Amino acid sequence: MNKANLQPLKGFRDFLPDQARKREFVINTLKEVFSSYGFEPLETPALERIETLLGKYGEEADKLIYRFKDRGEREVGLRYDLTVPLSRVIASNPNILFPFKRYQIQTVWRADNTQAGRFREFTQCDVDTIGSKSPMADSEIIIMIAKSLERLNFKNFKIIINDRFALFNSLSRIATFNNEEKLSICRSLDKIKKIGKEGVMKELKERGFKQAEEIIKTISESQETKDLSLIFSYLKKLGLKENQIKFDSFLTRGLDYYTSTIFEIEVEGYQGGSIAGGGRYDALISFSAGKNIPAVGISFGIDRLIEAMEQQDLFKDIKKSSSQILVTVFSKEYLDNSLNIVSLLRDKGINSEIYLDEEKLDKQMKYADKKGIRYVIILGPDEIKKNEVTVKDLSTGNQSTVALEKIDNFFLS
Amino acid sequence: MNKANLQPLKGFRDFLPDQARKREFVINTLKEVFSSYGFEPLETPALERIETLLGKYGEEADKLIYRFKDRGEREVGLRYDLTVPLSRVIASNPNILFPFKRYQIQTVWRADNTQAGRFREFTQCDVDTIGSKSPMADSEIIIMIAKSLERLNFKNFKIIINDRFALFNSLSRIATFNNEEKLSICRSLDKIKKIGKEGVMKELKERGFKQAEEIIKTISESQETKDLSLIFSYLKKLGLKENQIKFDSFLTRGLDYYTSTIFEIEVEGYQGGSIAGGGRYDALISFSAGKNIPAVGISFGIDRLIEAMEQQDLFKDIKKSSSQILVTVFSKEYLDNSLNIVSLLRDKGINSEIYLDEEKLDKQMKYADKKGIRYVIILGPDEIKKNEVTVKDLSTGNQSTVALEKIDNFFLS
Repeated sequence: MNKANLQPLKGFRDFLPDQARKREFVINTLKEVFSSYGFEPLETPALERIETLLGKYGEEADKLIYRFKDRGEREVGLRYDLTVPLSRVIASNPNILFPFKRYQIQTVWRADNTQAGRFREFTQCDVDTIGSKSPMADSEIIIMIAKSLERLNFKNFKIIINDRFALFNSLSRIATFNNEEKLSICRSLDKIKKIGKEGVMKELKERGFKQAEEIIKTISESQETKDLSLIFSYLKKLGLKENQIKFDSFLTRGLDYYTSTIFEIEVEGYQGGSIAGGGRYDALISFSAGKNIPAVGISFGIDRLIEAMEQQDLFKDIKKSSSQILVTVFSKEYLDNSLNIVSLLRDKGINSEIYLDEEKLDKQMKYADKKGIRYVIILGPDEIKKNEVTVKDLSTGNQSTVALEKIDNFFLS
Repeated sequence: MNKANLQPLKGFRDFLPDQARKREFVINTLKEVFSSYGFEPLETPALERIETLLGKYGEEADKLIYRFKDRGEREVGLRYDLTVPLSRVIASNPNILFPFKRYQIQTVWRADNTQAGRFREFTQCDVDTIGSKSPMADSEIIIMIAKSLERLNFKNFKIIINDRFALFNSLSRIATFNNEEKLSICRSLDKIKKIGKEGVMKELKERGFKQAEEIIKTISESQETKDLSLIFSYLKKLGLKENQIKFDSFLTRGLDYYTSTIFEIEVEGYQGGSIAGGGRYDALISFSAGKNIPAVGISFGIDRLIEAMEQQDLFKDIKKSSSQILVTVFSKEYLDNSLNIVSLLRDKGINSEIYLDEEKLDKQMKYADKKGIRYVIILGPDEIKKNEVTVKDLSTGNQSTVALEKIDNFFLS
C-alpha cells in the first residue's frame, strides 16, 4: 500500500481499541436503558433507493447524500438519517403493533464540509414512539433521556422544552404568516443564544419582518401550554427533578417536521451544543394508504455524547483493557501450568489472557502494562513446587502470593 | 412513497425487533467471550479508497465491490471484508502493541447474485491475533470459537483442522507444481464432501493433473504435523474436548492467503455449510516498510450462525420483549398511581412500560400479549384502596394479588 493512502478517507475514522471500547460502553448503556423502558431494536439497510431519500430533508441536505448507480443501474443512496428508513419500515409493515417503540443505533453518511469539524460517517441513535398522541409518550421519551444521561454519569444537564404548535399560533395572532415564513422566523429565533434578542430583532427586520419587535415581545411573554404542563406533571411523577427541565419559549429546533413538543438537552460546561434533541412529529409518518401516524422521538449524536463525556472525565472508571489478568509463561517447560491457570480463571468468568510467545518475563510484564492489564500472574518452578502463584498488581506495584486453589477467590472478592 | 418501492433493495434486509433482538443477543454474547480472552474491539470506515480494496480479493471478487465516485471525484468502495481494513490499520499505526488481538463486527457489502440465496449486505465478525508466530495463538483462537459456540448453546459441533503448509509440501513431493497449480488442486480437493474421492480424482484428471491418483493417495495418508500436534495438546489443556476437533487432510479452505493452520467449524445437523472458518496467514499483513507480520484469525458469518441457531431452536430462552411488565392505566384518575409503580419498578432495575393512551383494560392486555410482555399489572380503585396491585402472568393465565411495598420482590425473586 502506498504510504499516503493508509489513512482513512477525509471525514472518516478508524476507532482503535481505546476509542472503540468507549463507544461500546456508551452504546451498551443506552441500549440497556432504552430496553428498560420497553423500546425494541430496529435495523435498516445502509443503502436505500434514491427516491426514498431525496426530498425528505430539504434541498441543501439532498446535496449531502452519498448517491451512485449500483451494478444493476439502480439509483441508490447511503443512509442519511434514521427517521426516513423508519417511515419506510412502518409504511411497508401493516401488521406492526402500535404504539411501536423502537430504538435504532446505526451509522449515517453525509458528504459534508469537513472543515466545519463535521464527520462524513457518524453513528446516530434514535428512539421513537410511533402511534400514540398522548403526552405520556412525550414524557416517557424525556424521562428515558434523563435516565440515560444519569446512567452515563452526567451530573448537570437540562432538558429545554417548548411547544412549536403554540409558537406558531402566537405568530399567527401577530400576522397571517404562511408556513414558510413561520419556519423562517423560527430560524432567526433559534439564534437567540448566539446573538441575543437585539440581534434576532435586527435579523428579522433585515429579512422583511416589520413585526420583529412584536414577535420578540410575544414570544418572550409566552407561557407553557396545557400539554406542556401535563408533560411536566407526568415527568415529576416519573422521577425527573425540577431543575432538570426548563421551558424556553424561544426554542425552535432546526428540523421542519416537528408539530408540537420540541426539546433539546444541554450539558452544563459542554460547549459543543446540545447533545440530543427531538420532539413530536405527527404528520411525517404515514401508512402506504396515506393516513398520518402520530410520533415522538429523540436523536442522540454518539460522537458528541462521547466528546462531552471525555471533557467531563466520565470514562475514568472504564477498564483500560478487555483482560483483567495476564498469565505469564515462565518457560516452555511450565507452559502447561500457565495454560491450566488461564483456563481455570476463564471458567470462573474472569477475563484473562496468556502470553503467546516465548519471551523474558520482563517483556511479558511490559506488554501487560502497555495494554492496561491490571494484574500479572507469575508461576515459575518455586511457585509450582508450593502450589502457589505470584500476583502482581501493576496499578499499585503490590505483589502477593496466592495458593493455587484460592486464585479465583482472590480476583472475585 | 410509491407502494412498489417500500421494500428494501434486493439483497438488503430490514431487521424488525424480533430479528434484531436475536442479532443483539448473538453479537453481545460473542463480544463477551472475545473480551474474556483479551481481544479488543476495532471499527473501520464503511468507505475506503478503491485502491485499498482492489486486487486484494482476486478478480472475481473485485467485480462484487460496490464502487463509485464520491462528490469530491474520489474513487471509493464499500467495505468488502474486515481483513483488508485491518491490514490498513496495522500499516498506518506503527505504535500498535503486538500481539494485537482484535475483534471487529461490522457490515460488509457485496454486489452478489441474490438468486444464489446470498445477501448483498451482511454482518461479519472477525477475530484475529496479529504479531505472534506461536501455535499458542492458533490454539487461543480455536478454544475461543469453541467457547463462543458453547455459550450460544450449540451442543454438537466440530472443529475441522489441517495444515496447508504440510499439504503444499506433500504436493511438492509428487511433482514441481507452481503455486497457482497447488491452489487449483486445493479447489478440487475442497469438493470431496460433495463429490467424493472418485469425483475429485475425475476432476483433477480433467483439469490436466495426471498425478490425480497419487495426489489422492498421498493426501489420504497424510498425518497431522508437529505444529498441529502442539495445537492439539494446548487445546486439551485449555479445555477442548477430544470429540470437538478433527484432523482432516483434505480440508483446504477457499481463501488463497492462508499459509499453515486452517480450520472450519461444522455444526451437526446444520446443512448450510461451515459457520466459521479461519487460519494462519503470515504473509498478508505488513508494515508500510514492507516487513510481513504473522497473523491468525477466524471469521464468523453472523447470518449463518443465527440461521443455525434458529434451526436448532437455540433462541427459545430469549425474551420475546424488552419489557417484562406492562403497567396498565385504569383511568385518567388513577394515572398517577400507575406512573408511581412503573417508576418504582424501573428504579429497581425491572424493565417495565406503562400503557400510553386511554384505552379499555382489555385493549391494554392485548397489547402486552401481542408484544410478548409476560406480566401485566392492574391497579384500579379496589387495589388502590388496599395498597395492592393485581399481577397477571400472561404465560400461565395466573393472577396474584401483591402488596404495593412487596411488588419489586415479587419480580426479583
